Amino acid sequence: MIRVGVVGATGYSGVELLRLLSVHPQVSLTVITSRKAAGQAVGEYFPNLRGVCSLVFSAPEEAPLTECDLVFFATPNGTAMNMVLPLLERGVRVIDLSADFRLADPDEWRRWHGVEHAQPQLLERAVYGLPELNRAALRDARLVANPGCYATAVQLGLLPLLQERVISSEDLIADAKSGVSGAGRKEQLATQLCEASENLKAYAAGGHRHLPEICQGLRAVSGGPVRLTFVPHLIPMIRGIHATLYGRLKTPEADVQAVFEHRYRDEPFVDVLPPGAHPETRSVRGGNLCRVSWHRPGGRDTIVVLSVIDNLGKGAAGQAVQNMNIMFGWDERAGLEQIALLP
Amino acid sequence: MIRVGVVGATGYSGVELLRLLSVHPQVSLTVITSRKAAGQAVGEYFPNLRGVCSLVFSAPEEAPLTECDLVFFATPNGTAMNMVLPLLERGVRVIDLSADFRLADPDEWRRWHGVEHAQPQLLERAVYGLPELNRAALRDARLVANPGCYATAVQLGLLPLLQERVISSEDLIADAKSGVSGAGRKEQLATQLCEASENLKAYAAGGHRHLPEICQGLRAVSGGPVRLTFVPHLIPMIRGIHATLYGRLKTPEADVQAVFEHRYRDEPFVDVLPPGAHPETRSVRGGNLCRVSWHRPGGRDTIVVLSVIDNLGKGAAGQAVQNMNIMFGWDERAGLEQIALLP
Amino acid sequence: MIRVGVVGATGYSGVELLRLLSVHPQVSLTVITSRKAAGQAVGEYFPNLRGVCSLVFSAPEEAPLTECDLVFFATPNGTAMNMVLPLLERGVRVIDLSADFRLADPDEWRRWHGVEHAQPQLLERAVYGLPELNRAALRDARLVANPGCYATAVQLGLLPLLQERVISSEDLIADAKSGVSGAGRKEQLATQLCEASENLKAYAAGGHRHLPEICQGLRAVSGGPVRLTFVPHLIPMIRGIHATLYGRLKTPEADVQAVFEHRYRDEPFVDVLPPGAHPETRSVRGGNLCRVSWHRPGGRDTIVVLSVIDNLGKGAAGQAVQNMNIMFGWDERAGLEQIALLP
Amino acid sequence: MIRVGVVGATGYSGVELLRLLSVHPQVSLTVITSRKAAGQAVGEYFPNLRGVCSLVFSAPEEAPLTECDLVFFATPNGTAMNMVLPLLERGVRVIDLSADFRLADPDEWRRWHGVEHAQPQLLERAVYGLPELNRAALRDARLVANPGCYATAVQLGLLPLLQERVISSEDLIADAKSGVSGAGRKEQLATQLCEASENLKAYAAGGHRHLPEICQGLRAVSGGPVRLTFVPHLIPMIRGIHATLYGRLKTPEADVQAVFEHRYRDEPFVDVLPPGAHPETRSVRGGNLCRVSWHRPGGRDTIVVLSVIDNLGKGAAGQAVQNMNIMFGWDERAGLEQIALLP
Repeated sequence: MIRVGVVGATGYSGVELLRLLSVHPQVSLTVITSRKAAGQAVGEYFPNLRGVCSLVFSAPEEAPLTECDLVFFATPNGTAMNMVLPLLERGVRVIDLSADFRLADPDEWRRWHGVEHAQPQLLERAVYGLPELNRAALRDARLVANPGCYATAVQLGLLPLLQERVISSEDLIADAKSGVSGAGRKEQLATQLCEASENLKAYAAGGHRHLPEICQGLRAVSGGPVRLTFVPHLIPMIRGIHATLYGRLKTPEADVQAVFEHRYRDEPFVDVLPPGAHPETRSVRGGNLCRVSWHRPGGRDTIVVLSVIDNLGKGAAGQAVQNMNIMFGWDERAGLEQIALLP
Repeated sequence: MIRVGVVGATGYSGVELLRLLSVHPQVSLTVITSRKAAGQAVGEYFPNLRGVCSLVFSAPEEAPLTECDLVFFATPNGTAMNMVLPLLERGVRVIDLSADFRLADPDEWRRWHGVEHAQPQLLERAVYGLPELNRAALRDARLVANPGCYATAVQLGLLPLLQERVISSEDLIADAKSGVSGAGRKEQLATQLCEASENLKAYAAGGHRHLPEICQGLRAVSGGPVRLTFVPHLIPMIRGIHATLYGRLKTPEADVQAVFEHRYRDEPFVDVLPPGAHPETRSVRGGNLCRVSWHRPGGRDTIVVLSVIDNLGKGAAGQAVQNMNIMFGWDERAGLEQIALLP
Repeated sequence: MIRVGVVGATGYSGVELLRLLSVHPQVSLTVITSRKAAGQAVGEYFPNLRGVCSLVFSAPEEAPLTECDLVFFATPNGTAMNMVLPLLERGVRVIDLSADFRLADPDEWRRWHGVEHAQPQLLERAVYGLPELNRAALRDARLVANPGCYATAVQLGLLPLLQERVISSEDLIADAKSGVSGAGRKEQLATQLCEASENLKAYAAGGHRHLPEICQGLRAVSGGPVRLTFVPHLIPMIRGIHATLYGRLKTPEADVQAVFEHRYRDEPFVDVLPPGAHPETRSVRGGNLCRVSWHRPGGRDTIVVLSVIDNLGKGAAGQAVQNMNIMFGWDERAGLEQIALLP
Repeated sequence: MIRVGVVGATGYSGVELLRLLSVHPQVSLTVITSRKAAGQAVGEYFPNLRGVCSLVFSAPEEAPLTECDLVFFATPNGTAMNMVLPLLERGVRVIDLSADFRLADPDEWRRWHGVEHAQPQLLERAVYGLPELNRAALRDARLVANPGCYATAVQLGLLPLLQERVISSEDLIADAKSGVSGAGRKEQLATQLCEASENLKAYAAGGHRHLPEICQGLRAVSGGPVRLTFVPHLIPMIRGIHATLYGRLKTPEADVQAVFEHRYRDEPFVDVLPPGAHPETRSVRGGNLCRVSWHRPGGRDTIVVLSVIDNLGKGAAGQAVQNMNIMFGWDERAGLEQIALLP
């Protein structure tokens, strides 16, 4: 059993983390912080945790985070980068679910976030927490940058094809669709039920912050320049991401199904569907799976990859737990075997 | 006032037609047929028409369709092609909302529908009812093939750019998203609330029947071969189509906004949004508008066009009424000025 | 044509009013105010009004409201009572959609709102705008208190039975269900899609502000004390109220259907369904209708009345337009003949 | 480990049972039958079970059900009563999730189901599976009639108050609201997303089949005649039941909170909320909990009880697993400790 803290647990990634950690066999949840909910019982704040979690939210500055073995940050961008250094120095490991440590290059970070990074020297120490890409490095990581939800769905869909040079890296399109929980748990107008249900729209079509993170990951495997057009859409549902990915075949004779199956044959949380399948987001709701399939319409040279995850699961809290399992040498599946609710 | 009949009015396109025709200033609804609902009052069958429509559904074979000036077919594919000839011979004009007359080439029709067309000689007489493309021909049409919903959204988004040779016609992607009403009003499992809500999936990624219709339309304006990858998705909402269209710029110096605005400057039902906008499907719900905008992410050579319609409005019944207005020389807006409900 | 102003038009009742007034044959919309949206084009703020409404929001203090013939207040409670007096003194008529003038008794107002009423002397001048109850008084009204949404659904369901002494007034239950738009257009957490969809809960079961308004109305017709238990529920949909009303029969031999039909035979916006029917909220969505039916389960002495309205239509903006039509002597149906969207 | 079979597992109660049984520590799922899906892999039929369940659906007549220790029936009404006898005779225990064995009186069964019961002599052998009422009898039961979903929510809300004679048994109202999954997994029109979402309606207001089951249970504890008006409503969400219960206080001085807390103090799956609370259906989604609270509006003699369950959990499959745990002497919580997904 390790002692675990969660900073900023009043958001959707936070409550999903609490749900998973509450039943994890190796974890003792010891500190949960929130500035705005300090003093409130976690089980009153989140009705699904009533009777499950007996902790009370602490104010972050008073929380004994340094006594933890591991601290998760489920905070807005810009918070973790100001808080992790003292923890790391005391030997506390950190998994950050925000975007603070996802880009290796401080200049690129500044360009997309509009401010200087507070601890640029930590960027190179952080390990990007996509296990399917970085499992070895994660085993010894002290600071993990948990990937973004879109970034997870897109990278898992494209990785095998780029790594095997089956498709061109300079002609990629990611048309991504996300449930509303991806926008966070905030008092905001655009995600009110009356604004977001019975509606569909794209957003940030001119450029979205997950783009540099995705390109950084894809460059690593493709060994060359990446050109990706990424358009996210807001879907009237709570959970789920569906990435529809378009690439151009470089080797029309490639056995695409075999490429996927081979690449992911030992992955516990990537499920390659049979040829012709269309994965559904509900099939992974509440779980840590990514399901992928591919199509080659009309036998032409465009490959379509369909990749689905739960944005709060494999796209956030589930992946964070998977990373913890790897960092501590446990069974990678520990605490992650929930079956999706259907219907 | 003309006498109007509707064949097969128990589907969603049908009831939307009845809603529009009931308040159209030039129309007297005289016959509404349905095999399964024959004998039932329309106002009992559809609760929104109670107190509005006093007609009773007739069985198709007993309905006095030949006494109409115009008959709409809102029937499944394969029905209208067996029924329109006697009507046309008696001088009754026909607008068919199904796919029966949308393809000019009987061979292509057979390839996509799996059976021979019953009246191939009518295919060349039919006018494809996209007013923005064929307004002149529609004025004298006797048989109109009302476009498919996806086909409308995609063509209106791409027409200006192909016509002006701004983008290549051989490298097109249409990632389309539709509300569930596009699947029709049927006792089927996949569109049950418990199956389709809180869920998202692609379907027919390998090839969809709207593809040849779209390509046929785009070829006409682009003057060359068209290569389009078209992937439709099922969205957990009732109405609305959002087409996200990707093309490759051939003339990077083109003023894309001007191309759109010029092409649609006299169109009553296409609204070009300001640069940087993201149209929402709810903004056109219940109406006949198509709203479009475009983006050029990162200033690279990929153009993204966003096009939204109500699949039952501009994508079906609304467009059918617009076609009627053109055929009879009325104000093209007659009966089509509803404002979308919001929220 | 009269000149009409709308104060506080950025909420859901406000935008519904704008939708209705924009196409009303007797109305010229001349002023639309909003403190937070001042200077913005209405057609940009509300995407359904783009191309429909060319006005710009004014700040309330700068708006030429006194030049209007009629001003609607679609403001939060507590605003209209501070603004209407100067308008009334200049001869401008007012319809207030908030709760400010709904209770005749200033003491009761204070008890439920927690503050003193700013203009208690206006309470007796205000006419409660339920046309089915107060049509005659509305013809000469200068200040109309437009009823609450729950209050409309409940009163229209119970009025005939209380007036004819068919049920007891001391043993009433109103179990009411509302779509989320009833909670207003605000940055709030509880009505986020992720909080309110796929969920159902009661609220204010211990006492809700619509209760005294309902009781006041029912007392007027029942001629005696009213005891009503009222429990509202939040339903995961945008629009619609369904009131399920339970009363105890005093005259078991009464012809309940005849009582309803007789009471509402001349009402343009109350539709009594046939015996055994269950009205659906979608059948009145976007319109001004109230649909009612009743049941007597097991032939016992409990009567169940089902009453549905659109909370933004007959429950707010539609009823306000109906009241305007009465005040100005126009056809009561003017501008209110929209047919509900289905599906 | 016991060997367990599930008959009729293609419905929503069935798939929920499979989800729960797949991870139950004492259960080996050995037979799953379905006439229509015979030969298909369970993990293909239900995408959430892909990779979880490796069984194939058997046709019921070929399935080795007699080799099981326990068989669940998740079949439509009228099936189990024709199949259980041979199983019981071979010593196989049975839990039936349908209505076949819920009523003790064959005459009443016939009255509500319209046909004779096929095995009336089994009705008295069946134990009604509401653990909070019948735990002792369930320990030795061979045939358990698992309660209906509405019946569970209503009985758990009223039991303590009737048992302690706090409210009258002759003046009860149950206004119940259910998600659409309660209507089953069938090709039907009324529960299509386009028909049931954005809509709300009551149904069967004149009399519903769960009524006699509820009254039978309430009579047992109240020791006298029960008069209950029960009106169910269809809510646009997938899972969840909310029962709003109205009763008349007989002993106004009663400590209602204490009555509830005392009655349920040892119940693992009934959670009495603090005074003034409003339980939410999402707080029990996917779990086996019933959450209750109560209100006494205005301090008058009407008590309002709010009771929520997941209709497929405590209202069906969860309760069935709880019953199994009791029958086999295991920890009653085994396999039932899932935490609700939120959001």
